[in-house]
Amino acid sequence: MKALLIVAHGSRRKDSNDEVRRLADRIRENSGPAFNFVTCAFLEISSPQVDSAIADLAEEGVTDILVFPYFLAVGTHVSCDIPRIIDEEKEGYPNIHFEILPHLGALQGISSLILKQIYKSAPATA
Amino acid sequence: MKALLIVAHGSRRKDSNDEVRRLADRIRENSGPAFNFVTCAFLEISSPQVDSAIADLAEEGVTDILVFPYFLAVGTHVSCDIPRIIDEEKEGYPNIHFEILPHLGALQGISSLILKQIYKSAPATA
Repeated sequence: MKALLIVAHGSRRKDSNDEVRRLADRIRENSGPAFNFVTCAFLEISSPQVDSAIADLAEEGVTDILVFPYFLAVGTHVSCDIPRIIDEEKEGYPNIHFEILPHLGALQGISSLILKQIYKSAPATA
Repeated sequence: MKALLIVAHGSRRKDSNDEVRRLADRIRENSGPAFNFVTCAFLEISSPQVDSAIADLAEEGVTDILVFPYFLAVGTHVSCDIPRIIDEEKEGYPNIHFEILPHLGALQGISSLILKQIYKSAPATA
């Protein structure tokens, strides 16, 4: 049983958190059989927090959790906070295999995605 | 003369700002003849600030500036700060046409980009 856990910062603005939830929905719809669960969690302010989301996945019997940091930059959250939280969770769930993926800003495809979007929004500039 | 101006938050961490600069470099290399200039600017902490980047572009003779908010969520920066700054710049440069694009988190392709990356990083889960 495999899960993808998208970890975002969390915001006081409900709209911002809902954007992350909608992203998780879109990924879930498109992930085919790769994951039994696709869900999201937040480091601050919003819920679920990461530990609570992992507890829910553990209860469902998940054996593998891929953690995707939904961050643009390698800041403290990506380099310290998320690895620390996941290390703590590993102790609590020794039978679950955790893996932290590269953060969003590190994905090579970002620049072509932006260029495609720009051409779509403003074809006169292309 | 057209320019793409990528506007990011700015960080105390030099690495994070350099990630944005490298993104601007990659987009510049791949944008073909669409833009005469591709550059980045920051709202806080880092330089150049947005007004200074626009002053440089104006000096180069740019007539069109597409502003791309490099933000994941519609927070205050995307919904208020960037539009306010650009409105002020419009007054200072009435002959330059400014357009603010949808922010990064709103791009439809984000979910497929993430899925592709996940398959690449962890093919065993696919």
